[in-house]
Amino acid sequence: MQSLQEKASEWSGVDPNDAFAIDETNLFEKLGLQTFINLSTNFYNRVYDDEEEWFRSIFSNSSKEDAIRNQYEFFVQRMGGPPLYSQRKGHPALIGRHRLFPVSHKAAERWLQHMQHALDSVTDIDEDSKIKMNNFFRHTAFFLVAGDELKNQNQVVACKHAANKPAAE
Amino acid sequence: MQSLQEKASEWSGVDPNDAFAIDETNLFEKLGLQTFINLSTNFYNRVYDDEEEWFRSIFSNSSKEDAIRNQYEFFVQRMGGPPLYSQRKGHPALIGRHRLFPVSHKAAERWLQHMQHALDSVTDIDEDSKIKMNNFFRHTAFFLVAGDELKNQNQVVACKHAANKPAAE
Repeated sequence: MQSLQEKASEWSGVDPNDAFAIDETNLFEKLGLQTFINLSTNFYNRVYDDEEEWFRSIFSNSSKEDAIRNQYEFFVQRMGGPPLYSQRKGHPALIGRHRLFPVSHKAAERWLQHMQHALDSVTDIDEDSKIKMNNFFRHTAFFLVAGDELKNQNQVVACKHAANKPAAE
Repeated sequence: MQSLQEKASEWSGVDPNDAFAIDETNLFEKLGLQTFINLSTNFYNRVYDDEEEWFRSIFSNSSKEDAIRNQYEFFVQRMGGPPLYSQRKGHPALIGRHRLFPVSHKAAERWLQHMQHALDSVTDIDEDSKIKMNNFFRHTAFFLVAGDELKNQNQVVACKHAANKPAAE
């Protein structure tokens, strides 16, 4: 069986070494907090204004402000900055926290398209950092698609198990 | 509804600030790779030799060697060292990767008991690092208990959903 990492690499076309090249330099020190806030704000402005209702609705249970903060705090923490996300919310637990969202191949591609536009719109992100972040985002998006598939496998097992149990249990 | 972080803090008795005090110093630089390898080896020797079959069996689908490597690579990465875990396996995704294990309160306490003994057995871990790691482990163990509960909620929703669908779907 393919691992999460193997699926993420195959579907994204990004090798793990390229995905985690974000760890070669401290991108937080290089870019600064405000750049991450700008990036996530630009990204979620696009997402919440998306003309495709199927995509926009994935985010409809969160306020845009919360979505922006959750995202930039995670990026800051993961890219060499202070652990803002974990201090407030605990471990990133990316698969667990995406469990209620339908993370399909199509949704991953649309997420990445908005992020690519956001990266191109925000000034102060140099070309090298942009490439590293793009590879990280692409690999991570498909890592979550792989995580979403596991969820479906679990459900089949759980429902079969539940169906074989007495109703009172 | 309580968040994962709130449940982890309540059940562990560890405040998030204390849990993530591991980020105040670079524990990897302070302790070195070999100490982390020794810690995980000592821990899993205890786990795989546990007299309680219910606990030992949780780990029976992995070889001890794999379990040791997965754990110390994650600890090294999370405590300031190179991202060994992600380069090999992707994001830690703690909740997602524990989805097949029954992470109960009782299992968390037994895991922590073995880890406490391992921390006390491995030389070269100073008292301050030991306190920080203990708080991190305790909070994380109960974060995973909280994650395990989410899984059960998901299954109820999914099975109800599946039961209302035509069989062919």
